[in-house]
Amino acid sequence: MPPIIALLTDFGLADAYVGIMKGVVLSICPTARLVDLTHDVQPQSVRQAAYVLLTAYRYFPPETVFLVVVDPGVGTARAPIAVETAHGRFVAPDNGVLSYVLQETPPRQVVTLLERKFHLPEVSQTFHGRDIFSPVVAHLARGTPLTAFGPPRENLVTLPPPRLSVSAAEIVGEVLHIDRFGNLISSIGRLSWEDDERLQFSPRFGAQISFPGALVAAACRVQIGNQPVGPIRRTYGAVPAGEVTALIGSAGQLEIGVNQGNAAQAMQATIGDPVMLRFA
Amino acid sequence: MPPIIALLTDFGLADAYVGIMKGVVLSICPTARLVDLTHDVQPQSVRQAAYVLLTAYRYFPPETVFLVVVDPGVGTARAPIAVETAHGRFVAPDNGVLSYVLQETPPRQVVTLLERKFHLPEVSQTFHGRDIFSPVVAHLARGTPLTAFGPPRENLVTLPPPRLSVSAAEIVGEVLHIDRFGNLISSIGRLSWEDDERLQFSPRFGAQISFPGALVAAACRVQIGNQPVGPIRRTYGAVPAGEVTALIGSAGQLEIGVNQGNAAQAMQATIGDPVMLRFA
Amino acid sequence: MPPIIALLTDFGLADAYVGIMKGVVLSICPTARLVDLTHDVQPQSVRQAAYVLLTAYRYFPPETVFLVVVDPGVGTARAPIAVETAHGRFVAPDNGVLSYVLQETPPRQVVTLLERKFHLPEVSQTFHGRDIFSPVVAHLARGTPLTAFGPPRENLVTLPPPRLSVSAAEIVGEVLHIDRFGNLISSIGRLSWEDDERLQFSPRFGAQISFPGALVAAACRVQIGNQPVGPIRRTYGAVPAGEVTALIGSAGQLEIGVNQGNAAQAMQATIGDPVMLRFA
Repeated sequence: MPPIIALLTDFGLADAYVGIMKGVVLSICPTARLVDLTHDVQPQSVRQAAYVLLTAYRYFPPETVFLVVVDPGVGTARAPIAVETAHGRFVAPDNGVLSYVLQETPPRQVVTLLERKFHLPEVSQTFHGRDIFSPVVAHLARGTPLTAFGPPRENLVTLPPPRLSVSAAEIVGEVLHIDRFGNLISSIGRLSWEDDERLQFSPRFGAQISFPGALVAAACRVQIGNQPVGPIRRTYGAVPAGEVTALIGSAGQLEIGVNQGNAAQAMQATIGDPVMLRFA
Repeated sequence: MPPIIALLTDFGLADAYVGIMKGVVLSICPTARLVDLTHDVQPQSVRQAAYVLLTAYRYFPPETVFLVVVDPGVGTARAPIAVETAHGRFVAPDNGVLSYVLQETPPRQVVTLLERKFHLPEVSQTFHGRDIFSPVVAHLARGTPLTAFGPPRENLVTLPPPRLSVSAAEIVGEVLHIDRFGNLISSIGRLSWEDDERLQFSPRFGAQISFPGALVAAACRVQIGNQPVGPIRRTYGAVPAGEVTALIGSAGQLEIGVNQGNAAQAMQATIGDPVMLRFA
Repeated sequence: MPPIIALLTDFGLADAYVGIMKGVVLSICPTARLVDLTHDVQPQSVRQAAYVLLTAYRYFPPETVFLVVVDPGVGTARAPIAVETAHGRFVAPDNGVLSYVLQETPPRQVVTLLERKFHLPEVSQTFHGRDIFSPVVAHLARGTPLTAFGPPRENLVTLPPPRLSVSAAEIVGEVLHIDRFGNLISSIGRLSWEDDERLQFSPRFGAQISFPGALVAAACRVQIGNQPVGPIRRTYGAVPAGEVTALIGSAGQLEIGVNQGNAAQAMQATIGDPVMLRFA
């Protein structure tokens, strides 16, 4: 089985930065299968990368090595790390970009990437993706054990969790991500249909939230900012083309979309906007 | 020989949707070679995807599995299908996206993807690319026969053919696609040079059209909307830099381009604009 | 060891042109590993492609075949060529796109790709990437020797070198490339830190330039157009967020960036703008 390496960066595809990283990986581990998650995370948006990684990692085999380079602090004191979990190994800067995923699949082992024999001979100040992260990932994929890359590390940087609060009257979250279709993906979830009337809510963020069982979907109303959206439907197609609806997105999060249209444009919504799920 | 899977979607590359689909495929068929056709089809443009697939599929080995997900009806009654032909197997929603290609390489077998054991355990309402199409493609690439995926299907959805009409005085088509260079690719074709003077015309769309043999290239004049373009040349370089010309594009279609420039901008042209080839 | 093929074009990813080229390659050489350098070189910008290739090729194994198609002269008299060097084989149009890289890794052998049995049966006038370059690359990757593809060639087209001049008072270069983060990468380099105070300068372009040893970093001031930038720092993080700084970029070139921001926007700078490194 060839090792799988999944890449997530904010490098874009207009430069050769990603291609260069792949050259470094294949120079060390020629059998690796390289898969792009995305390279179009908004530049230096650690939080968006953390969310994208969270929605993706479970669909890869558990042996996959994830190379995550969204690194506004490159060249400063922030540490480069590698983390082993039951579902995936992750190589990244210690800036919180792994914190959402590590809440779901907790770290078994964490090291700081101090062992220079696994870095390129010359390490630049501006492109650790090429000089440190890529060669480490390649050696990891080839079978070098995690502990060889440096000393154990504790107390990883964590991002503040997205907004999510629950009261007797409502759940309040925020827009976490806007996808290419203009769908507004919120921090409210995971939701899943229990039957045609009721939704199960098991909060993904804010593990401290306890919630008394299932919601009655038909009795809920979704709102973004002060614009009403209506109830949660099963599909975009449940409303006429051009009309807005709430539904459960592919990652289990409450999502606002427009059937065959673009909700971000229609609602003039942006990341961080409050989303409310009101009980009747 | 590792199986080849070619992907065509409108998912863009800014989200991890395509990467997630590849994770699903590799979890099931780790030896698959994944090739992106494009993921930047205009969102939900079934017709553009149908055209792009038509221009691409013949350059892949005949055993290739094509995963085509442009799916505005996801979650509604439209069926997921798999089609076997002499040149390629195709997995897609039954919304016409395969209709251009199946006119060239007719279906040998078609099934509806109802067999749930080849889907992911949880099937969302909004991302069948991940939950149905990707695992089916992976199993197909591994060797599972087409008939295992569901019952036979007849009467596939077909798109209306692009505009194309022929009279004694002219051929009239329309702009089908605008590429990244701003070249305007029309529905008029296939055209090929018979010799330095004459063109062969064998209509790709509208098989009902009969046409009496060769055109005399020197005697033809191309027009888009009411803007004259001139005769058909052999290369962009046959006109000075910055000047517009008609020529035969790489898929055999009549194409309007600007030498080292952008015809869509220069002519303010858009998809659907009429293109005329006038005989003198 | 599977052969590695690295692709660099200006075809973009919105069309299937790149996917089609990969289909052609895999039809001939099914074991090839395909890596994208970038396909978003500015359309028909031979010089930008030459620079991107220069920064990337050394990070790939020396056996790599580079497929470089930025080809404004497609269909005209410009020749298709293949070049063998100590670090990489290169297949491209002879329009100067290889000239920067061949200055670093000189050609051992060059041929003109005239041997038609290695082309597709039908060669279009507009897409030699598909019809000539891709099948040649695939055969080369499979082991066909360079001399089989056509007769030897001399006197390759070379691009004029980027602006770079040295006097007792200053080094003057120009902005060569702007990356996705808005960093302005200049023709001044290679620079490397000799110690905390001094930089080594070994000009990459303009081999004729002789320069008397090391610069004193602390005594240098960088300027773009008539906007002062200040001294060269080690990292973006050495200045507060939002502030502009000069530093040595990942390819060893003098670079102007904004910590967690976009220098191209902040300085309203563009490719070709003069960059000065003034000695105190």
